[in-house]
Amino acid sequence: MVSKHQVLNMLAHIEDPELHRSLTDLNMVRDVQIGDGVVDITLALTVPNCPLKDQIEADVRKIVGAMLGVSQVNVTLTAMTDEERKAIFGEPTEGTATQYNKVDRVVAVMSGKGGVGKSLVTALLATALARQGLRVGVLDADITGPSIPKLFGLRPPVRSGPMGLWPLQSQTGIKVMSFNLLLEYDDQPVIWRGPLIGRAITQLWGDVFWDELDYLLVDLPPGTADAALTTLQSLPVNGIVMVTTPQSLASMIVRKAVHMAQMVNVPIIGVVENMAYFVCPDTGKRHEIFGPSHCHEVVLTAGAPLLAQLPIDPTVAALCDEGQVEAVELPEVPEMVKAFVQAVPVKKRE
Amino acid sequence: MVSKHQVLNMLAHIEDPELHRSLTDLNMVRDVQIGDGVVDITLALTVPNCPLKDQIEADVRKIVGAMLGVSQVNVTLTAMTDEERKAIFGEPTEGTATQYNKVDRVVAVMSGKGGVGKSLVTALLATALARQGLRVGVLDADITGPSIPKLFGLRPPVRSGPMGLWPLQSQTGIKVMSFNLLLEYDDQPVIWRGPLIGRAITQLWGDVFWDELDYLLVDLPPGTADAALTTLQSLPVNGIVMVTTPQSLASMIVRKAVHMAQMVNVPIIGVVENMAYFVCPDTGKRHEIFGPSHCHEVVLTAGAPLLAQLPIDPTVAALCDEGQVEAVELPEVPEMVKAFVQAVPVKKRE
Repeated sequence: MVSKHQVLNMLAHIEDPELHRSLTDLNMVRDVQIGDGVVDITLALTVPNCPLKDQIEADVRKIVGAMLGVSQVNVTLTAMTDEERKAIFGEPTEGTATQYNKVDRVVAVMSGKGGVGKSLVTALLATALARQGLRVGVLDADITGPSIPKLFGLRPPVRSGPMGLWPLQSQTGIKVMSFNLLLEYDDQPVIWRGPLIGRAITQLWGDVFWDELDYLLVDLPPGTADAALTTLQSLPVNGIVMVTTPQSLASMIVRKAVHMAQMVNVPIIGVVENMAYFVCPDTGKRHEIFGPSHCHEVVLTAGAPLLAQLPIDPTVAALCDEGQVEAVELPEVPEMVKAFVQAVPVKKRE
Repeated sequence: MVSKHQVLNMLAHIEDPELHRSLTDLNMVRDVQIGDGVVDITLALTVPNCPLKDQIEADVRKIVGAMLGVSQVNVTLTAMTDEERKAIFGEPTEGTATQYNKVDRVVAVMSGKGGVGKSLVTALLATALARQGLRVGVLDADITGPSIPKLFGLRPPVRSGPMGLWPLQSQTGIKVMSFNLLLEYDDQPVIWRGPLIGRAITQLWGDVFWDELDYLLVDLPPGTADAALTTLQSLPVNGIVMVTTPQSLASMIVRKAVHMAQMVNVPIIGVVENMAYFVCPDTGKRHEIFGPSHCHEVVLTAGAPLLAQLPIDPTVAALCDEGQVEAVELPEVPEMVKAFVQAVPVKKRE
């Protein structure tokens, strides 16, 4: 018959899949009762709704159940008290996750102007990078007008572990975090003055367990105020993709963002013109429905190459509304991503 | 021969066209010299670049020149010192203009979402109201991404008088003030944290000499942060026009703005859907290039009527880029303005 000592010895070989430390090391084992080949194990999870609790339970059942003399394994899950958690992890501090995160390149997608398609460009870049097998995250820094969750079809809840908030995973494995995922209703307004907006962004950076990423794309809101300032000054941004639309009016406002980037010394790696034209499905003719392009003004001011001119495509709009941005196929995207990766190459993986 | 006393007596009947007080009352007359029918008058302007200095000079020439025995009038203009100005007007205080302004109705044009055409809707409403002979002002509350000056083709400088900053006048007489008109270059970024943004908006309200207006339209930036909060809480806003676009994504973010308006108890007077469709010039066929409309979601949440569905029209984009928004003719506008005026009617003029 199996002994309690043998069971504990086995539990010492089962790791918490998030923390990569054994269940005994994490002081999670609360009780082990053995009788007639039936083993009852009580484990205290580090957080009540540990996202990996099912996996932990399955690992325990499988490994203990494989022991000689064990016919049945019952697992009861409880949660640690705050004191127990502190004893293991210390006081949780703001930005706890940062020490565990390894983000290779951070690129902000910016415009200054609203409604030009920053979120679409962010999502298209993320999707294309993920298709290449790269590990990609998207941080939605638009706190009051977030588009990212809807584009990727993601909904709350967001779960958290001892390392911080867990980003949601998109259908193709992109890690996504947005303040909108932390709200009860998606159309709930965030009526905050600027300093809180800035703080929310640093939290989405420092309190989210991004783990290892090749690229983290930060989708900025319009304007050159708090959100842009905090992102460009507090996050280790390696470069900026500047998004514009054909109108001269948009170009003027985007050039404000270009000047801001230059003032805070963050390089602009390229310009993307969105909504450049519409191809009439009946005639195949291109219509410059927002007028002739003024993106050369942005390119000149930015001193950065034009990465792409993207059309207006009702199919794209429909896929975005359905949360299927990862299914978008635009012939302009591969070239855009190629230039992007050349401008901010990831380091060689170890 | 005319005497100095007679000339001074005559100057006591000439009013400063802005302040409606006589030149002698304002202590503007610095010197009067008379010799051989030639009258030399030196006037100290209340501010160095008084926008009405030409008119003052012309009035003086005309009226003094009409006196018997006067063959020539020479006018020399200087400016008051700060001390002289203070002796007449007292210390200038923040919001000096408010006590002189009589604004009947203040309506904010809002969206939450960027790039939906808030500024276009603002300009179209202003133009249509001005065409009806109403006195209209436009306050551009988008400090970091201002579109209004370019739409109306307005450029700096903004001049100021003792009552405050003078709004610029558009081609059809709309009074316009935007923070962008106070910048040296139009693509200069305003890299400010939120509290300064809020303060800039209260200044555009309180430090601008709007004089008498039937309607002041406030063009809000995207988001539900500082600019929207300050405008809806610090300005006497009578109602909101909510602007949306067909996409479901836009609708979600616009509903955030609707909820914000409801929280701060400002009535939404109507919803305008912009970029609803594009009519192909070759086939005359309507294309819903941003997908089918979701504006009913906004209308339902807002509990306010749909004022208009505006198309995407390259002619409109071109006129906007040329600063000719007042020349835009859209068949949807008259109905929109009719409903607008019914929702927020001006008081009967005295």
